[in-house]
Amino acid sequence: MSSIANSRILFNSIPTGYPELGKTIVHNTSEQINVETVPLNGGILLKIIVLSPDPFQRNLMIPPSDEMFMPVYAIGEPIVGLAVAVVLRSENDAVNPGDHLHGFLPWKSYVVLPSAEGLSILDNKYGLPWTSYVGVLGLAGHTAWMAWKEYAKPRAGQTAFVTAAAGPVGSFVIQLAKRAGMKVIASAGSEDKVAWAKVVGADVALNYKTESTQGVLKKEGPIDLYWDNVAGESLDAALEAASVGATFIECGMASGYNTGHAPIKNLIKIIEKAITMNGLTVTLLYEKYLDEFYATVPKLVADGDIKHREEIYRGMDSVDEALLKTVRGAVKGKAVVIIAEQ
Amino acid sequence: MSSIANSRILFNSIPTGYPELGKTIVHNTSEQINVETVPLNGGILLKIIVLSPDPFQRNLMIPPSDEMFMPVYAIGEPIVGLAVAVVLRSENDAVNPGDHLHGFLPWKSYVVLPSAEGLSILDNKYGLPWTSYVGVLGLAGHTAWMAWKEYAKPRAGQTAFVTAAAGPVGSFVIQLAKRAGMKVIASAGSEDKVAWAKVVGADVALNYKTESTQGVLKKEGPIDLYWDNVAGESLDAALEAASVGATFIECGMASGYNTGHAPIKNLIKIIEKAITMNGLTVTLLYEKYLDEFYATVPKLVADGDIKHREEIYRGMDSVDEALLKTVRGAVKGKAVVIIAEQ
Repeated sequence: MSSIANSRILFNSIPTGYPELGKTIVHNTSEQINVETVPLNGGILLKIIVLSPDPFQRNLMIPPSDEMFMPVYAIGEPIVGLAVAVVLRSENDAVNPGDHLHGFLPWKSYVVLPSAEGLSILDNKYGLPWTSYVGVLGLAGHTAWMAWKEYAKPRAGQTAFVTAAAGPVGSFVIQLAKRAGMKVIASAGSEDKVAWAKVVGADVALNYKTESTQGVLKKEGPIDLYWDNVAGESLDAALEAASVGATFIECGMASGYNTGHAPIKNLIKIIEKAITMNGLTVTLLYEKYLDEFYATVPKLVADGDIKHREEIYRGMDSVDEALLKTVRGAVKGKAVVIIAEQ
Repeated sequence: MSSIANSRILFNSIPTGYPELGKTIVHNTSEQINVETVPLNGGILLKIIVLSPDPFQRNLMIPPSDEMFMPVYAIGEPIVGLAVAVVLRSENDAVNPGDHLHGFLPWKSYVVLPSAEGLSILDNKYGLPWTSYVGVLGLAGHTAWMAWKEYAKPRAGQTAFVTAAAGPVGSFVIQLAKRAGMKVIASAGSEDKVAWAKVVGADVALNYKTESTQGVLKKEGPIDLYWDNVAGESLDAALEAASVGATFIECGMASGYNTGHAPIKNLIKIIEKAITMNGLTVTLLYEKYLDEFYATVPKLVADGDIKHREEIYRGMDSVDEALLKTVRGAVKGKAVVIIAEQ
């Protein structure tokens, strides 16, 4: 077999607001690879089958001087993100051809690595689609399920408020809250999303673009648990509507990722109401919960006890659009990009 | 004995920024009382001996429509605050003449109450000055000691950052952190306060008015525990300098009480660093810790193991100045007003 193109998604320029189509990242086919002969030097050769556009990737599209929790993207290099890949060749005892791996990978069709360190081998015993492993069973699922176990301390009859409620994290959280016997108020940014939040169990669902979050919380609250994916005005409204001793889980601050952070006016309420606010970095919870997650959640998904939805894109050419829509919150469910069927 | 004046501190007008001398509260002597004959109707007659000007009182000098955690002050009525009083007469089996009581009382020389409900009877077995019971053994002491027990989870060798470090809460916290083996960085607003923070044990003490908090924390941090009495720029600097998994105890936001709250720019760091932020309302901790506090802390104070300092005022005429200076953070230690020696 001769050399073929090794398609790559390269970081092309630092955006100022939202990423721009054809400008921020570009699909490049100039690199060649011979998958049969490329030297592995004791390592492994992977073929990417699914890519996972995620909102956090916007935080890596920044100048190196602003670097925070992960290395920022380098201009002209493949962007890094979550993916599922299959092992084509291995000179490493830890993995075998045909194994499926999940974790952070450079976004290109074929990847040579010295080892599988930092990647998980997927045991897909319920035969779920591989796309599940970057959504309800990937970062979004980890985030919802592990942080719920670590921080939520739910009590039946209490009230939870969930923002970005139709997203892959929010819709999972709604279901966890309902399983715990809570009343759930959900907030999302379109009628379609509001409808999905209700399908997965929200008792009250509001479109924050057309209704007053503050007004709904005043009527349906007070809230004992706030799952924050957005910060900004929703956080201010939640601080105002919180009960004494409420728990806030700070999972994301999407309202400010692209356009800067709106100042919070009601922070003083965390003192008046003795609120505990937990900032969430899911990777810090992996050691405690990752095994339990994979022992528990795939079966719940396979049995239909946890619902989820995906917006499926296909091919390297669609990554640009899938990632931009994810960053803008314009996706219905979890965006996934299928690069190869197997 | 004939009637005498029952001096009162009346709320006179709602301030816009800081309270104003002779305008916000006024000393009024128009009420008369005969302490031997005033009818008690089964209740008790108290004589105030110590008043406790406290920063939270600024939050009660607001329009009724802005009421938060306690009833706001009513124009023309005595303000309410913490005090120590002695029982002069009692028609109630729960207390006896000569007992000393501590708690929220209207600020007037003599107070008739239906019972001692909500007040603590002080067992001053170490013969400490009664002023101690509104400072290191009062609200400030409760706040520091109980919240430390509930939230701090200190580890020897870790670093704590304490703001308003020379105040009655902050200087107590410094000593608790040192007793736990921590390195302590302290921040205060004058050279005198910085010196006091060092006397009670701070390893590093900065004057935030002349030095960069951000710069000092960058050099001396990262910080694992932040005791926040001020919010504003100090909170932003602490968020930036926090270690992963840091604990923030939100005790006060004094920087905004009189002049409005400065917006926080770095709230996103609580996610990146998995910070837990605990809002503190000390009264919610009383059930759990109040008995243990009085069984433990008076001895520590009597033995000199916990240092504290008081700025002593005398007489109803000095309440105005003592409260204003407290609200402005211009007091050296805890302001106390002695109304009667016994």
